[in-house]
Amino acid sequence: MKAQETAVIFIEFQNDFCSPGGKLYDQVADQIAKTGTVRNASRLLALAREKGCKIIHCPFTLDREWVAEIKSGGTLAAGAEAGLFAPESWGHDIIDELAPLEGEVVLAGKRALSAFSHTNLAHLLHFAGIKNLVVAGFLTNVCAQATAMSAYDAGYSVRMVPEACGAVNQTIQDYVEKDFAPLLGGCMTVDEFDREVQ
Amino acid sequence: MKAQETAVIFIEFQNDFCSPGGKLYDQVADQIAKTGTVRNASRLLALAREKGCKIIHCPFTLDREWVAEIKSGGTLAAGAEAGLFAPESWGHDIIDELAPLEGEVVLAGKRALSAFSHTNLAHLLHFAGIKNLVVAGFLTNVCAQATAMSAYDAGYSVRMVPEACGAVNQTIQDYVEKDFAPLLGGCMTVDEFDREVQ
Amino acid sequence: MKAQETAVIFIEFQNDFCSPGGKLYDQVADQIAKTGTVRNASRLLALAREKGCKIIHCPFTLDREWVAEIKSGGTLAAGAEAGLFAPESWGHDIIDELAPLEGEVVLAGKRALSAFSHTNLAHLLHFAGIKNLVVAGFLTNVCAQATAMSAYDAGYSVRMVPEACGAVNQTIQDYVEKDFAPLLGGCMTVDEFDREVQ
Amino acid sequence: MKAQETAVIFIEFQNDFCSPGGKLYDQVADQIAKTGTVRNASRLLALAREKGCKIIHCPFTLDREWVAEIKSGGTLAAGAEAGLFAPESWGHDIIDELAPLEGEVVLAGKRALSAFSHTNLAHLLHFAGIKNLVVAGFLTNVCAQATAMSAYDAGYSVRMVPEACGAVNQTIQDYVEKDFAPLLGGCMTVDEFDREVQ
Repeated sequence: MKAQETAVIFIEFQNDFCSPGGKLYDQVADQIAKTGTVRNASRLLALAREKGCKIIHCPFTLDREWVAEIKSGGTLAAGAEAGLFAPESWGHDIIDELAPLEGEVVLAGKRALSAFSHTNLAHLLHFAGIKNLVVAGFLTNVCAQATAMSAYDAGYSVRMVPEACGAVNQTIQDYVEKDFAPLLGGCMTVDEFDREVQ
Repeated sequence: MKAQETAVIFIEFQNDFCSPGGKLYDQVADQIAKTGTVRNASRLLALAREKGCKIIHCPFTLDREWVAEIKSGGTLAAGAEAGLFAPESWGHDIIDELAPLEGEVVLAGKRALSAFSHTNLAHLLHFAGIKNLVVAGFLTNVCAQATAMSAYDAGYSVRMVPEACGAVNQTIQDYVEKDFAPLLGGCMTVDEFDREVQ
Repeated sequence: MKAQETAVIFIEFQNDFCSPGGKLYDQVADQIAKTGTVRNASRLLALAREKGCKIIHCPFTLDREWVAEIKSGGTLAAGAEAGLFAPESWGHDIIDELAPLEGEVVLAGKRALSAFSHTNLAHLLHFAGIKNLVVAGFLTNVCAQATAMSAYDAGYSVRMVPEACGAVNQTIQDYVEKDFAPLLGGCMTVDEFDREVQ
Repeated sequence: MKAQETAVIFIEFQNDFCSPGGKLYDQVADQIAKTGTVRNASRLLALAREKGCKIIHCPFTLDREWVAEIKSGGTLAAGAEAGLFAPESWGHDIIDELAPLEGEVVLAGKRALSAFSHTNLAHLLHFAGIKNLVVAGFLTNVCAQATAMSAYDAGYSVRMVPEACGAVNQTIQDYVEKDFAPLLGGCMTVDEFDREVQ
C-alpha cells in the first residue's frame, strides 16, 4: 500500500464516546479500555502522519434541525433526543489524543451512518488520488462498518483496524473482524499498517 | 405504515443463491431451509402486491468488465472470478417463486453491496413518494444490510424481514436481527407486515 | 403550484455580486440595475415567506483549500485566485435585502456551479416533500442555470425567475429566458409567482 | 493532455438526431450539415482510438415508464410523448459513422440532461483514472452542456468540441462556444485535440 494512495479516516473520536462524562461513554468504556482503542488510534494517526497518508478526521454532528428533516427514526432520532454530538458542545469536541493538525481535513457534515452520506468525502478521496481507505473509530459495527461498506461500493480497497475501533461488546467486535471485514479487504493491526504502508 | 408509501425490495432471489446447482447454494442451503426464506419471501411478495406496495426486484449482476474497473478486491472480485451472477446465465435468473410481474420494477445495474450504489433506486423511491422501505433477501448481513444502511442514511424508515432473508449461519442471522436492525427501524415478520401495512 | 410543495432558492445574493466594492459588482452592475434583480428577488422572498414556501438561501464559498483539491481550472480557479467569496469576508456576506430569517435554510458548502453538487440540497428537498423549485440569483446562465438543470434531472418541476436573476449582459439573460428555460419548466415573473403559488 | 487521462464522450449520435427520418432530424439538419458535426465527430472518434483515450458512447433512452416516474414535465416529457429515443427503436440506434467497437463503453441509462445523472459515469471515470473530459454531441446547449457542467462540478478538466456538437441554430451554438464553455476549460477543435492529446 503506497502511503500517497492511502487515506486513514478517524470516525467520531469525540468526548461523547471517549471521555468520562460523555453521553455514550458508559456504553463503550469497558470495551474500549480492553481494546486500547484510543491508544491504538493515536499511534495509527502518528504513523499516518509520518508516512504522509491523507488524514481525515470525521466527527459526528447531530443537530436537531437535521434530525427533524430526516424522519427515519432509529438511532439517529434517539441520539438527537438525548442531545448527543450537539454542535459546539463539549461532547462534540474531538479528544486531545486525536486532535487534528492544521491542514488536515476535518470532514464537515457527517450526520448519518456512513461518512460518505451527505458529505463531500467521495470527492475528496477522488481528487487526492486515493485508492486505499483505512478505517478506525466508532462504533465498529455502525458508522465504521457503514463507511467501510460505502467505500467498498465506491471502489476503494478497504481495511478496517479493529484495535483502533470501539464497539459495545466483544461479540460485536468479533463479528465485524471475523465475519464482515473479510468480505471487503479485511482487517489490519496498527503494526501491520506500519509494515505495509510505505 | 401506509401501503402506498411503502416499498418492498427483494434482493438477489436468484438461482445462484436459491436453487440446487447454484454457485452459492451450498453456502446457504441449510440456513435458508431452516429459516423458510423463499417461502416467506414469496408470501411477503404476494401480500405486498395485494396491498399495493411498490415492489422492487433487485438481482445482482457481476459482469467481469465491471469488476475489472472496480479494483477493490474482496468479495466482488472473488465472485466475478467464480462466475457468480454472470449476465444472462441461469445462475443470474430470478427464481420462479419470486418472479416479477409485468409492470414491477426490476432494478438494473446492482453490482455493489448496497442496492443504492450505481443504480437509480434513490430516484425511484423519491418519485414514488415512498417513506418506508422493507428489506428481504440475500445475504442478510451483506447486501440486505448494506441496502438497509443506505436507505436509513437517505432518510427512509427501514424494516428488515429476517425470516425472508438468508445468511450463511444462524449466528450471523441473529446478529443482524438483534444487534443491527434495531439501530434503524427494527425487524418485522411477514405476519407483522400483513397487520401493519395498510 | 402548492406553496408547501414549492421551494424557492436564492443563489449568491452576496456583496461580491450585489454591492459597490464587491469583486464582481462591476461586471453585473448595469445589467442588474436595469433588470431590478435585487428588488425583484427581495419581493419574491417576501411572497415566498407569506405563502409558506420552503426558502433556501444559497451563498457561494470559495475557500482556497477546496480549489486546490479541484484541479479543474476555469472560473472556479480564477475566482479563488481573485479571492472571491472568501469564507467570512465581507464579499461573502448575504446582502441585507435578502437576509435569511431564523429557521430558514442557509445551504452550506456550495462551491461548484450547481447548488446540488457537494451539498445536501437533494436530501433537503426530498424530505421537505418539495415538487417544484423556483430559481433566482446569480449568474443567470452559470449557477442559476446549472442548479435548474440539476433540479430538472433530479425530477423537480423547475421555474426560473429571470427578473430576479443577474447576468453580465442582456443577450445572455435573453438566451436563458427564451432558449434554455423553456426546455425545463419555463420562466415566471414575480407577479406570476404571486398568482400561481398557493 | 495525456491520452490515458482523457475520456471523450459522444452524446446521442443516434438516428433520431442524425438521420433523415429521425424524429429530431429536421430541427438540426441544416445546422449540423453546416457545422460538419458527424464528420468531425467521426474523425474525433478515430483519433481518440488511435491515441488510446477512454471512449464513452452515450445514447439517450426515453422509456415511457421512466418519464411517468419523473413528473418534471418539460422537454423530457414532450420527447417521451413524441416517442423519441424509444428503447430498441431505429431512432435509438447509434449511427454507423459513430458505431461503438467491442470493448468500448456504451453508457447505459442516460435519460436525463446530464450524462452523470442516474448513470455510473462518475464511477467509470474515477476508476479509469481520467482527469480530462472532452465533450461532443447533441444538443450543444442541452445534454452536451449539462454533461460538461456536471463534469466540471465533479472536478474534471472539461473541453467542448463545438464542431463535433449540434445545436438547432448558430446563435445557440455561438453562445455555448463563446460565452459558456470558457467558464469551464474552454473549447477545442478536432485539430487541436489531435495536437494537444498525447
